[in-house]
Amino acid sequence: MTQLNNMLAWARQYKRRYLAGDISAGIVVAMMMLPQSMAYAIVAGLPPVTGLYASIVPPLLYALFGTSRTQSVGPMAIISLMTASALAPLSPPGSGLHGVLAAQLALMSGAVLLACALARLGFLANFFSRPVMSGFTLGSALVIAWGQAASLVGQNAPAGTVALFGRLRVHPASAVLGVGAIVLLLLAKRHLARLLRRAGVNPEAASIGARLAPMLVVVGGAVLVGLGVAGGGVPTIGAVPAGLPGLNLAIAPAYWKPLLQPALLIGFMIFLISMSSSQALANVPAPGDPDSAPAKPLANFELAGLGLANIGSALSGGLPVTGSISRAAVNVAAGANTPLASIISAGLLALALVAPTGYLALVPLPVLAATIIVAVLGMLEMETLRTSLKYDRSDALALLGTAGGVLAGGVEAGVVIGVLLSMATLIWRASRPHIAVLGRLAGSDHFRNVERYPQGTAGGTDPAVLLLRVDAFLFFGNIDAVTERIERETAARPALRHLVLILSAVNAIDTSALFGLAEINRALAARGVTLHLAEVKGPVMDRLKTVNLLAGLKGQVFMSTADAFDALSGTR
Amino acid sequence: MTQLNNMLAWARQYKRRYLAGDISAGIVVAMMMLPQSMAYAIVAGLPPVTGLYASIVPPLLYALFGTSRTQSVGPMAIISLMTASALAPLSPPGSGLHGVLAAQLALMSGAVLLACALARLGFLANFFSRPVMSGFTLGSALVIAWGQAASLVGQNAPAGTVALFGRLRVHPASAVLGVGAIVLLLLAKRHLARLLRRAGVNPEAASIGARLAPMLVVVGGAVLVGLGVAGGGVPTIGAVPAGLPGLNLAIAPAYWKPLLQPALLIGFMIFLISMSSSQALANVPAPGDPDSAPAKPLANFELAGLGLANIGSALSGGLPVTGSISRAAVNVAAGANTPLASIISAGLLALALVAPTGYLALVPLPVLAATIIVAVLGMLEMETLRTSLKYDRSDALALLGTAGGVLAGGVEAGVVIGVLLSMATLIWRASRPHIAVLGRLAGSDHFRNVERYPQGTAGGTDPAVLLLRVDAFLFFGNIDAVTERIERETAARPALRHLVLILSAVNAIDTSALFGLAEINRALAARGVTLHLAEVKGPVMDRLKTVNLLAGLKGQVFMSTADAFDALSGTR
Repeated sequence: MTQLNNMLAWARQYKRRYLAGDISAGIVVAMMMLPQSMAYAIVAGLPPVTGLYASIVPPLLYALFGTSRTQSVGPMAIISLMTASALAPLSPPGSGLHGVLAAQLALMSGAVLLACALARLGFLANFFSRPVMSGFTLGSALVIAWGQAASLVGQNAPAGTVALFGRLRVHPASAVLGVGAIVLLLLAKRHLARLLRRAGVNPEAASIGARLAPMLVVVGGAVLVGLGVAGGGVPTIGAVPAGLPGLNLAIAPAYWKPLLQPALLIGFMIFLISMSSSQALANVPAPGDPDSAPAKPLANFELAGLGLANIGSALSGGLPVTGSISRAAVNVAAGANTPLASIISAGLLALALVAPTGYLALVPLPVLAATIIVAVLGMLEMETLRTSLKYDRSDALALLGTAGGVLAGGVEAGVVIGVLLSMATLIWRASRPHIAVLGRLAGSDHFRNVERYPQGTAGGTDPAVLLLRVDAFLFFGNIDAVTERIERETAARPALRHLVLILSAVNAIDTSALFGLAEINRALAARGVTLHLAEVKGPVMDRLKTVNLLAGLKGQVFMSTADAFDALSGTR
Repeated sequence: MTQLNNMLAWARQYKRRYLAGDISAGIVVAMMMLPQSMAYAIVAGLPPVTGLYASIVPPLLYALFGTSRTQSVGPMAIISLMTASALAPLSPPGSGLHGVLAAQLALMSGAVLLACALARLGFLANFFSRPVMSGFTLGSALVIAWGQAASLVGQNAPAGTVALFGRLRVHPASAVLGVGAIVLLLLAKRHLARLLRRAGVNPEAASIGARLAPMLVVVGGAVLVGLGVAGGGVPTIGAVPAGLPGLNLAIAPAYWKPLLQPALLIGFMIFLISMSSSQALANVPAPGDPDSAPAKPLANFELAGLGLANIGSALSGGLPVTGSISRAAVNVAAGANTPLASIISAGLLALALVAPTGYLALVPLPVLAATIIVAVLGMLEMETLRTSLKYDRSDALALLGTAGGVLAGGVEAGVVIGVLLSMATLIWRASRPHIAVLGRLAGSDHFRNVERYPQGTAGGTDPAVLLLRVDAFLFFGNIDAVTERIERETAARPALRHLVLILSAVNAIDTSALFGLAEINRALAARGVTLHLAEVKGPVMDRLKTVNLLAGLKGQVFMSTADAFDALSGTR
């Protein structure tokens, strides 16, 4: 029910003043998606029209079920690369089976996403640290760019085969067209908005105009080919079948198993990429409604929206899709206020397929390759690397390790390496929790860290009573560190009789830490020290009561540190 | 140098009174290892003598370089299963290549462990939670036990091929021998120690005697076969080549690559299994020296000791080895005080190989299978499952998921699933850090959680100033939760002008959280709220100074919460 409420929320609250922005954004995004979606289908080793199919039904479904109002769902470079890599061992790029398997992969990824939504696994978005995500993007962008280098210079390499360090055969006319397109796109990126503004175009329109440079370059390329100016032999997209995608699903049952692992990894990355994009968008208020509270994406709804979008892509002959920050940024810049913008752009792309598609056949592949290369290099951000090199070497290492993993082992290995490196840095940090020895502040019932308040707490300690406060939830990764600290502190205090663990900042104790506490209790008892607890939070206490740790505890559970100190410090 | 000091420490501090215990433990462990090491070689699909080889050089090297004084290094059931599983696709069990690849795997696992020691990756031991380790052991034990079922009833199945749910062909005489051995072993486990005590044996000797039941049963089985009582056709170990293992290394270079991933996973598990065993031993003082401070294993030295032990195993024709808690427990029970016990047991096993080995050929495989089955079922502990089912469902789920992963996908998949489940439970818990709104306690300079001290702090708050204390280190997994909490708290306070983040319990801020703080700073500024920091720890502050977060901060960094409140609460 919440889902349905969520689904209709933007429509029910629709305001008249949103419409102009939504229409203009719909038009702009459609013009951006027309070449882009075909290009990303080529990256995946699929016929270009597949990309268009994947830009119609999926954004409609996301508009209904997703969480971000201005997200733009469709084919995306990294997901297409992962698709190509997953299908490479199974079917030749461009074959009929390749298309069937791409749709099947979208279906399976969609099912994975939906299952995660139902199991409320939205917290999985936290599995990648920012440096690891940055490294993954870096590696993937380089692989994609290099994969397009052959196409850029006119070599009719089978699309989607990524051969690093292969030799390029150069077709001169194509190379001129491709490299020229890159130069134009880079110039446009740097200067077009400024030139347009200088020519009197208003700033917003100028910035949107500049974003449409890829579309203009592609049209220009097609015109050159059409007029015969480009010379013969330039590879082009070729005939694009007209008409809307039929809603049906071809499945190759023998491939469920080999596609399972890729579907898990692709589903995971679809979610991560779309979430990080939606989160960035949430900080931008809708232009038509500057006071609107930015809608934070709800991870579980995002999972559901993306799951349905991918299943929709599979049913309409597409490929795995996700939200894209670059497309969404254009959407917002062009005035999008609500998902209506996505619905309009999907409608326009459907119209483009219903209208004669002959003109699309003329689009030269080298120019399309140029747009891909410039787009993926635009995804690179070096700030995270620069910052982490200065700030935290282990994070910089994780970034470079993930990028290296993608380059050396492929995108799938890159995801696994990324997760492991994120976790390794986490475990390493978590294994050093903050633990403070407390003392009573003179003349009060307050207890503070004796290291930070040596004078104030000078009279408020007792050699027989040790007050230890742990500032972290207790789990398998830090319970050994806690145990060691306790051993060190007790070894240094021969007169010790009571140890009070103050759990005011402990939100949770996992099963491993529970056994660890029981072990601490036993070890202390063997040395004649009694373990007590204090300031245990309600939910933590309720849990502890379900097992017999408390029964094995010889000491007491005190409400406050003061109670504990008062009760124990007299017993010396 | 520390390593060398460590290496010689026990020898330099050797006391005369240790000797008797070390000798008796050396003898007992050798008698235990003789059948056990051959049995675990069979689990790995190797000739039984390989297991003996792996019980000579590796424990000597671990004695010199390892950390635990009473650890017993050699072949171990789970590591042998992982070896069998890694080699299964590469070579037929029992073949010459199989033996070469097993040694190569030991070499590579050893190199992985040494590399981790040099990179000081000892913290990797924290990658498995206790429930996940318990689940992994459960799944592996069931797979091993089932894999021995065929051998138990006399089917001459190729050792090491683990066929779940295959059909068993029963050889009656073997089945009687095997099942009889199981019954005897279980009875001995339950009653032998008690019976011996009742017969006047002193309790310690009785308990050690009971531990030698597998050896007695194996000898009994060999005698029955030797006398012809067991009937014909009972499969036996067959000829065991006499003589010490030569020190050399046969390598199959074509197999470096397919063995890489298994070597990483096996190295990881060798470390985890040995660490958990050494940690358990650390809580037991040396019997000859009850006052001795228990030696905690140092993870990085443990890595080095195990790495060298495995390289030694490879050089002497063995297989991957690790420390075993069950063997180490026998070692301790039999009186081991120092690594000398291991050196003695290695020497005795070397003697057994130099002496005529004909008698070993008679050992019936069904009886050896019985000892394996009883041993691995003895590794099962149900307490973790029972406790986690009551205490924390997510931990119980992780346990069962890992066990299921081993059963369904094999040991290697089990390790990966185990890591992911450990991490998933961690991320899930870490994403809910403890955050408190503070207020000044009336008439003091102390600030406490307003929820816990509503009356005391009633006069000590200011609608324009919000004091938030975060009780967790800040990282990619919880920075979103911190951001959300800040948004919620600021949204509820229209008069807010200053937000002070109190970082007294924050031990570290990772790069992701650094960017998150910058984002929080920006978002607050957009709403007219200034972000300040207070009580930043020295090391954290030093780090922050290396990047320009502080430059972007419009607010101040206060030494204490009181300073912050005094300075800001007047500015309303």
